[in-house]
Amino acid sequence: MIDINKIRKDFPIYDIQPKLAYLDSAASSLKVRSVIKQVDHYYMSLGVNVHRGAYELAYEATKLYEDARITVSKFIGAQEDEIIFTRGTTSALNLIAHAYKEILKPGDEIITSELEHHSSLLPWMVVAKKTGAKLIYIPLTKEGRITVEGFKSVLTNQTKVVAITHVSNVMGYKTPIEEIARLAHEKEAIVILDAAQSVPHMEVNVKELGVDFLAFSGHKMFGPSGVGVLYGKENLLNSIEPFEFGGEMADQVFKDHATYKEAPLKFEAGTPVISGAIGLAEAIRYIESIGIHEIHEHTHQLHQYTLDKLKNVEGVTIYNPTADNPVIAFNVDDVHPHDIATMLDQYNISVRAGHHCAQLVTKFLGVNSTLRASFHVYNNIADCDTFIDSVKAAKEFFLSF
Amino acid sequence: MIDINKIRKDFPIYDIQPKLAYLDSAASSLKVRSVIKQVDHYYMSLGVNVHRGAYELAYEATKLYEDARITVSKFIGAQEDEIIFTRGTTSALNLIAHAYKEILKPGDEIITSELEHHSSLLPWMVVAKKTGAKLIYIPLTKEGRITVEGFKSVLTNQTKVVAITHVSNVMGYKTPIEEIARLAHEKEAIVILDAAQSVPHMEVNVKELGVDFLAFSGHKMFGPSGVGVLYGKENLLNSIEPFEFGGEMADQVFKDHATYKEAPLKFEAGTPVISGAIGLAEAIRYIESIGIHEIHEHTHQLHQYTLDKLKNVEGVTIYNPTADNPVIAFNVDDVHPHDIATMLDQYNISVRAGHHCAQLVTKFLGVNSTLRASFHVYNNIADCDTFIDSVKAAKEFFLSF
Repeated sequence: MIDINKIRKDFPIYDIQPKLAYLDSAASSLKVRSVIKQVDHYYMSLGVNVHRGAYELAYEATKLYEDARITVSKFIGAQEDEIIFTRGTTSALNLIAHAYKEILKPGDEIITSELEHHSSLLPWMVVAKKTGAKLIYIPLTKEGRITVEGFKSVLTNQTKVVAITHVSNVMGYKTPIEEIARLAHEKEAIVILDAAQSVPHMEVNVKELGVDFLAFSGHKMFGPSGVGVLYGKENLLNSIEPFEFGGEMADQVFKDHATYKEAPLKFEAGTPVISGAIGLAEAIRYIESIGIHEIHEHTHQLHQYTLDKLKNVEGVTIYNPTADNPVIAFNVDDVHPHDIATMLDQYNISVRAGHHCAQLVTKFLGVNSTLRASFHVYNNIADCDTFIDSVKAAKEFFLSF
Repeated sequence: MIDINKIRKDFPIYDIQPKLAYLDSAASSLKVRSVIKQVDHYYMSLGVNVHRGAYELAYEATKLYEDARITVSKFIGAQEDEIIFTRGTTSALNLIAHAYKEILKPGDEIITSELEHHSSLLPWMVVAKKTGAKLIYIPLTKEGRITVEGFKSVLTNQTKVVAITHVSNVMGYKTPIEEIARLAHEKEAIVILDAAQSVPHMEVNVKELGVDFLAFSGHKMFGPSGVGVLYGKENLLNSIEPFEFGGEMADQVFKDHATYKEAPLKFEAGTPVISGAIGLAEAIRYIESIGIHEIHEHTHQLHQYTLDKLKNVEGVTIYNPTADNPVIAFNVDDVHPHDIATMLDQYNISVRAGHHCAQLVTKFLGVNSTLRASFHVYNNIADCDTFIDSVKAAKEFFLSF
């Protein structure tokens, strides 16, 4: 059982806004003090570039940066050289899709789903268009879930790529990825997992999941903005083409050709996101100091508590009552979601309204947009109560016209 | 005339290391306190995502982020929607090269130079290989400079792209880009300028230079690591393809196709480098508070002072005595540059040894690597004296064996 009052003290925004009920962690989490301090430490006492300097400050910066890579690799059960620091999940997923533009052929099949965030879907839509490969959607259950059965129904000998989400950012459903990866590998397809929503909320071990590539972001797990991670199996990383070319990734450069280093440096052209990587490692240490299971248990309780109350509010439609992640997608009948969100903001509640960069999900639900409330470790029961009361008040306000 | 003692107080690293003689600013500058504070402010009091939230914190974060875009645009004389935030110069230059992979044809010519940093050269080497276009090098003067005459000698009706550096990161030579851009445009070629070394040191106005695209980084101008800027002419930005696909850049998404927003959002897929952009804007305010001309004048004096003394040290070869930027490329006869750099570090002097991610420059100089000392606003005469004395001491030490 976590000490929520103690935890809230770790998030400096509550010093300024003690009444804040922040329920938009699926978009970006609040930032923890130790991460901010660690980023400061880099800027204040080092601030220099990595890898290339022959002086003490550069060695120290390089050590912090490369230690961050080790911290990340251990956190997800990978090897150190399988970890690439990127600008975020989006960059990581684009990097992989880009590489497969050179590999896929007409008639090849890419399996994806309507649950995808645009960052997991659009890169492959473009690859399909350029290569003549086909984009195939896993049929979802009535509830909107990816199942092994649904996946089996579209898996063929032409399947070359499976690019799906680990946990939907709108519905909070967890994909049975272990079995899907096993089946995909029987067909020699590669599996790319968008883990932006799972890594901040559950134990993720790339070897146990059996995926080939996996991506996540720092800013959704108490870390800095502008940093993310691509995990890739070593042999695959060394067999695909770099996405960006430039400093540090080149080995030998001639006027008509160049050779490149091996992964991970091959994929980190230019000055890397030094402070971001260092901050992300600190965020991981913070998560580990609490325990990812404890975090999950805490948010699960808040999620269930809120669901139970929200279910009893007449005129509220909940689209994902069985969500695995602590996220509630809902609407208030006859009121535009943006109006509700704006009204909730008056009560210091931050929720999101819109398509959540996953337009096929809203289309699947048969709506234009939804509200989304999502929880993380710093939320407490008071946040849930304020939220429920405010939804009721907003509903009554708008329906009184 | 700037007050150097006052300025050094703005850089917190001197509190910890008062004796530091940091001469590697061409790689990465030291970080100024106001930038660190501004990044902290975002993380401490906001920390949330931009563009997508319907609540006050998100509006404030979005305002800070979009205000940063305005600050950058004014700083280089561009329009607001011509500014794209990237991970750095490398990402920005790759974005453009990638787009021209779809546009160039066999026989088209790309003009570049041996002065390029790998980030300006390698993306176009790859484009040439993929499209069948030819990579053409501007003949340099004996000194190693790009001249209008040299450029004219390779400009043809087949020239489609001119991708060159504004200021060489090793030689410090400034390219006569205004005239080159004018001539290139007569042939309807587009001009892409790597301004990573110029923007931190001189006034850069994109309209006056007349270039089509221009890129620079935050970390070389007292700003955060992991953020850079791509400037592009509005009509060109809207005519080329995005580099990355994902959240926020899409307009409408269907199962088989998608439409995209206009620039700049079209090129900023996913959660952007929020803290980076905000920090970069603060760095620009810092530069403006001192004055870019005053900064240039100060570093120019240190540069000339050091050059004059270094020229008189026997056994030292200076490769760029006429450099426009405050950077000195040199070697000590018969001693490996890495040995000198390591020895200088003992005297708290940070210089760089190697090929500086510009291997064609070292090849042009006929060496494997050089030492590089580069100056910025926080350096003082004591740094120069320590540097000269230490080079002498290092030389004597190694030549005594």
